Amino acid sequence: MIVTDLRATPVAIKDPPLRSAFGLHAPYALRTIVEIETDEGAVGIGETYGGKAPLEAFAAVRSQVVGMDLAALTPLRTALSARGAQRPEGWAWEARKFGPVALFSAIEVACLDALGKSQGLRVCDLLGGAVRERVDFAAYLFFKHAGDDGWGGVMTPEAMVGEARAMVERYGYRSLKLKGGVLSPDDEIRAIRLLREAFGPAVPLRIDPNAAWSHATAVRAATSMAGSLEYLEDPVPGIDGMAAVARETAVPLGTNMCVTGFAHLPEAIAKRAVAIVLADHHMWGGLRATVELGRLCDTFGLGLSMHSNSHLGISLAAMVHVAAATANLTYACDTHYPWQTEEVIAGGKLEIRAGAVEVPRGPGLGVTLDRDALGTLHEQYQRAGLVVRDDALEMRRIDPSWRQHVGDW
Amino acid sequence: MIVTDLRATPVAIKDPPLRSAFGLHAPYALRTIVEIETDEGAVGIGETYGGKAPLEAFAAVRSQVVGMDLAALTPLRTALSARGAQRPEGWAWEARKFGPVALFSAIEVACLDALGKSQGLRVCDLLGGAVRERVDFAAYLFFKHAGDDGWGGVMTPEAMVGEARAMVERYGYRSLKLKGGVLSPDDEIRAIRLLREAFGPAVPLRIDPNAAWSHATAVRAATSMAGSLEYLEDPVPGIDGMAAVARETAVPLGTNMCVTGFAHLPEAIAKRAVAIVLADHHMWGGLRATVELGRLCDTFGLGLSMHSNSHLGISLAAMVHVAAATANLTYACDTHYPWQTEEVIAGGKLEIRAGAVEVPRGPGLGVTLDRDALGTLHEQYQRAGLVVRDDALEMRRIDPSWRQHVGDW
Repeated sequence: MIVTDLRATPVAIKDPPLRSAFGLHAPYALRTIVEIETDEGAVGIGETYGGKAPLEAFAAVRSQVVGMDLAALTPLRTALSARGAQRPEGWAWEARKFGPVALFSAIEVACLDALGKSQGLRVCDLLGGAVRERVDFAAYLFFKHAGDDGWGGVMTPEAMVGEARAMVERYGYRSLKLKGGVLSPDDEIRAIRLLREAFGPAVPLRIDPNAAWSHATAVRAATSMAGSLEYLEDPVPGIDGMAAVARETAVPLGTNMCVTGFAHLPEAIAKRAVAIVLADHHMWGGLRATVELGRLCDTFGLGLSMHSNSHLGISLAAMVHVAAATANLTYACDTHYPWQTEEVIAGGKLEIRAGAVEVPRGPGLGVTLDRDALGTLHEQYQRAGLVVRDDALEMRRIDPSWRQHVGDW
Repeated sequence: MIVTDLRATPVAIKDPPLRSAFGLHAPYALRTIVEIETDEGAVGIGETYGGKAPLEAFAAVRSQVVGMDLAALTPLRTALSARGAQRPEGWAWEARKFGPVALFSAIEVACLDALGKSQGLRVCDLLGGAVRERVDFAAYLFFKHAGDDGWGGVMTPEAMVGEARAMVERYGYRSLKLKGGVLSPDDEIRAIRLLREAFGPAVPLRIDPNAAWSHATAVRAATSMAGSLEYLEDPVPGIDGMAAVARETAVPLGTNMCVTGFAHLPEAIAKRAVAIVLADHHMWGGLRATVELGRLCDTFGLGLSMHSNSHLGISLAAMVHVAAATANLTYACDTHYPWQTEEVIAGGKLEIRAGAVEVPRGPGLGVTLDRDALGTLHEQYQRAGLVVRDDALEMRRIDPSWRQHVGDW
């Protein structure tokens, strides 16, 4: 089966004013919707980072993808890697560096979707089969400004407990992740304490200050939250920084920042910098790469969890398929999904029930494009005028004195 | 698609009197031919270690496999691993310990063959696609006794050069692997020197004494053969032993003995014991596991080559498919294949030309069973009366004083 077309459509989706150590979410999150067509009429879809850089990358790779065998993904990966070898592996959150690994990831998902749809096989089955039919997700709790999203402003530990209660009530989550790096470390430690008091020890808690904290704060926070935390994600920057914190606490450290590609693993493992790696198929090289990461983590006794960005249902479906097929992905995954109210897949948003998403039942990813919605969200992209994500810029619009904490809070 | 039958048929195939550090090959090598049938009529085949232990394992697992979804392989793997967790991962060469990893490997190949055949996809495409359509193999040179195999006795370095010339002439090999641990280390070093003189630096050489050598011999041999060897395989036993040798030579060390499963990798990597891992899908947990091993080796800067036992064309086809799909499997693979004259696949033996085997073109593994040949080889198994491989026993039949060298030659 030969690929006859590769299309990349930029979309903008409404995003609430969520806060993180990087600043403030803009009113729109940017995504790119990928479509693959084959000579036998199979269509596959994928979703990845948005804005200008991905579009340029897709345009540049189109002639290489059109004409390839739909199943010949590893050859494409090696060709892209060879061409992009001078670029760093992994991904920079602002999507300015949409390199060959992220590019391949997006194309792989669309090709596996097309392959599965043409063969009547689910993507999880193409990856070795599902060890679970429902994938657990954690509530992704954000401090946030008030907006027209119905969630109100949430800028205190007390308000955060309210947000968590609403999330749990609405989606049935059984674990909670707090995006930190926004309030002072002491206030965020207090937020964890209040969440613990509100939900009890049966609900695992995590906090992710996105490397805003200093070593001393991280150690103090870990000590203070020990017993409440399932893991502490990226308290400080860098592998050496994380290793130094790990030496002084028994709380497992997770990361999506100092280990964002295979190339980072040898050093992180040798230095015992992290106990849990957060996978992300958009960033690590696709769905098969995520399964391979699972094997690697299992081999080295590392835990495996899953990272998320603001995303639509295509990404969620892909996340669910690969999580279902990865035996040792036993932590509840992150997802921003409930924060996005718009959707690009037919039938509307996938359901999160009892804190879990069922593996879609149809072939491929089990989701298809709503072309009207795609058109609407594409027009929204054109109107929005955003071509790159810049949370710091958004933050400074409303607080010119704001600066990002990096390992110094 | 549901699995409706799992059959395991023991076969015996004629094997020449090849020598190794373990002793002498018996007149027959034992294999097990695996067949999977599905409710939609798809049939898949696999091949693995032979004798009693695999048959017992297949009989014990049959009720678990029949009724499973053909694509649900990772769930089967995790179930078998959980049940067999008390058994060591990896494989013991005498196949007495046919554990859950080897069992899963064999079933996975047959299921992927059935899946590929039912979908019109090659197994290499189910693994991510072929980065090469021809897979290079190395001549597998054995010291041997005279037999009715036409190769005569080869028990001197000079005779070995003759064997190598005949192998290269017949199959076009462009690299040579010498099975050592048979003559004295000095004689085997001389054999490498003669091979180098005969074939020149364009033909990579390897030697594998199967851990027969002492540390001192290994270091002396490595020094003496440096510049001639592509890699030195398992000169001494154990990860610590290999690490000690590695510290004293620049010759890359390969292994199929101290690292035979994922569980061995963390220690071997931490101790820098080996530079090259020899994959073997029969032993490491199947074809997807081999691809995953490839990713892991790539991540840690380890080379990847491939190990072989005496085998038939089903195993060769599987080896070729997975080698084709594993980008960093760039060393010529080992295969005993030319030493076996009998075959169980339709159309007779696969061709080794210019030292390489083409990825079979049909769906699945691209090979099918010759049922008459299967019957003949099964009868041969019943007549042969062998139920376990024991090269030491064979050796002592003709030389009661023979003993295996393990790290002491």
